[in-house]
Amino acid sequence: MKLIGEKLKVINVGARSFYESIVAQDGDAVHVDWRPPAGGDPELARLLDSLQIPEIDEANEKAIDRILAARPMLVEIRRAKDVIPSMTKYTILHSGPPIEWKRMSGPTKGGVWGALIYEGLAGDQKEADRLAASGDIKFGTCHDHDSVGPMAGIISPSMPVLVIKNQENGNRAYTTFNEGLGKALRYGAYEKIVIERLKWIENILAPVLAEALKLSGPVDLKAIMSQALQMGDELHCRNVAASMILLKFLVPYIVETDFSKRDVNEVLRFMGENSMFFLNLAMAACKAMLDAGHGIKDCTVITALSRNGTDFGIRVSGIPKQWFTAPAPKSGYRR
Amino acid sequence: MKLIGEKLKVINVGARSFYESIVAQDGDAVHVDWRPPAGGDPELARLLDSLQIPEIDEANEKAIDRILAARPMLVEIRRAKDVIPSMTKYTILHSGPPIEWKRMSGPTKGGVWGALIYEGLAGDQKEADRLAASGDIKFGTCHDHDSVGPMAGIISPSMPVLVIKNQENGNRAYTTFNEGLGKALRYGAYEKIVIERLKWIENILAPVLAEALKLSGPVDLKAIMSQALQMGDELHCRNVAASMILLKFLVPYIVETDFSKRDVNEVLRFMGENSMFFLNLAMAACKAMLDAGHGIKDCTVITALSRNGTDFGIRVSGIPKQWFTAPAPKSGYRR
Repeated sequence: MKLIGEKLKVINVGARSFYESIVAQDGDAVHVDWRPPAGGDPELARLLDSLQIPEIDEANEKAIDRILAARPMLVEIRRAKDVIPSMTKYTILHSGPPIEWKRMSGPTKGGVWGALIYEGLAGDQKEADRLAASGDIKFGTCHDHDSVGPMAGIISPSMPVLVIKNQENGNRAYTTFNEGLGKALRYGAYEKIVIERLKWIENILAPVLAEALKLSGPVDLKAIMSQALQMGDELHCRNVAASMILLKFLVPYIVETDFSKRDVNEVLRFMGENSMFFLNLAMAACKAMLDAGHGIKDCTVITALSRNGTDFGIRVSGIPKQWFTAPAPKSGYRR
Repeated sequence: MKLIGEKLKVINVGARSFYESIVAQDGDAVHVDWRPPAGGDPELARLLDSLQIPEIDEANEKAIDRILAARPMLVEIRRAKDVIPSMTKYTILHSGPPIEWKRMSGPTKGGVWGALIYEGLAGDQKEADRLAASGDIKFGTCHDHDSVGPMAGIISPSMPVLVIKNQENGNRAYTTFNEGLGKALRYGAYEKIVIERLKWIENILAPVLAEALKLSGPVDLKAIMSQALQMGDELHCRNVAASMILLKFLVPYIVETDFSKRDVNEVLRFMGENSMFFLNLAMAACKAMLDAGHGIKDCTVITALSRNGTDFGIRVSGIPKQWFTAPAPKSGYRR
């Protein structure tokens, strides 16, 4: 059957079958894939509607502007307890939203045990476990302390941290050194080799790089990340190019320091052989960028998504002190 | 009009219009894009036919097998006159096919002048020009001396050369150090800064890297090139990743040498700031690979394509001593 008379030109909004039947009869039609807001739920639609207020749009634009304008630079290396806000000598930070000791996942507990042994607060895993459960340790999330770290994300007071400053906004982010692949605190390993490496990071790697950084001046992380993204890195699971670019930049300054040839050589080998070295810096650079948009009144931008192995949580800019959490999936990749 | 009776299934070879008319009439047809050999020229077809001999196919397969199996490794750094075959103290090598002095392009002449000044055989450009024209200098092409170099490709007896060994076949290729961008001998520049840099390469860079190479052992160039190709390099105009990977590998050994902190630092800065450092190595690695397929009886594989700024030339495996040349285009990019 054909339409009678003049040929129609139709714009169809909503149900697709009207559009299809016009086309089937040689009609000229354009389909607009519109659906009622909130799936047609009037109460939800009313709530969504109440969000359409100019203050929120303005606040969100402000947040995005600040996030995009951020210029995260690696400026110095310091001890965690000396720079991380509200860090005491009994504070242990972890990844994801806040969580009490007994609900922590295995790898996070492993990281805590390792950190307590590393700090000299416990002699072995059993002592560490008792201390962690005693209530004497103040657990907190990295994100609430301007910090970030991969996997278990454990930061304890004595650890050296890389200090990233957002030169545009002045806010700072802190992160630990990447330990390389294999047995590592971030995976929950706490045996001797892990503790020894953390001590080497504290006593050799951090002082050498701190000195090199004083000679080089601030390192532009966004410039390195931009180049690395063009060279195949995605800056989470692959940090090959970024780690090399950073090493290439720092090498002459590392060699210029007053440290012994042996120390310098150990540092160069460790950095050269750890293609994940840049991971923590990439995370902290993103933290410094996103935190520039955090704490803005009326802002609905999500400034952090993070897991602790038990729960997944988000932080919203305009509700800066609160986490919104849900249980993490039972299987698969966990953070 | 329809075809009568049974539906046809047609394979059409040659003129496409037959195929199209069958399809237009709902026939089932497959088109084979065949053309007469040699464009239908009977004499050319006869010549081409004479090439279809099993000895050639076998020789070509042998060449390709050897080229693909090649494993070019950077094994040492030596002085040109001590390792390059038939190099005398009055020999100057250049890029492309052989060419006499008076027909050389401007940049090639500039490179020769610079090399004669660098060698101490001439005090300035005028003296160098007279000497070059005198007949006392023995010009030769890099390719005929197992060597290769970018642009003018000038190699003179005192220059340090990187020695690449094809571990599979045992053949070697030699190349100079890349001087970096800006004024450089390979572009025909011969002023003071260029000569001074060549002297620095001879007196600092080459000895430091020679020592580092002894500590590191052979460097697998194919492994570096494979990784660099995945990171955005094409290994001619872009050598960013390859240069970094090589630097990252060599850094601990460079630092381990007995050279002064100042020398080591100069070397690390020069390599770190020269993203074309790997270019000469990439060229020499390819030279070592392709030369593995050169000089095979009956083989028609082209093992070199090269320009000298005046002529373009090719070398064919089975005719190893001869160049086949044509004038290079008058404008555009020249080698």
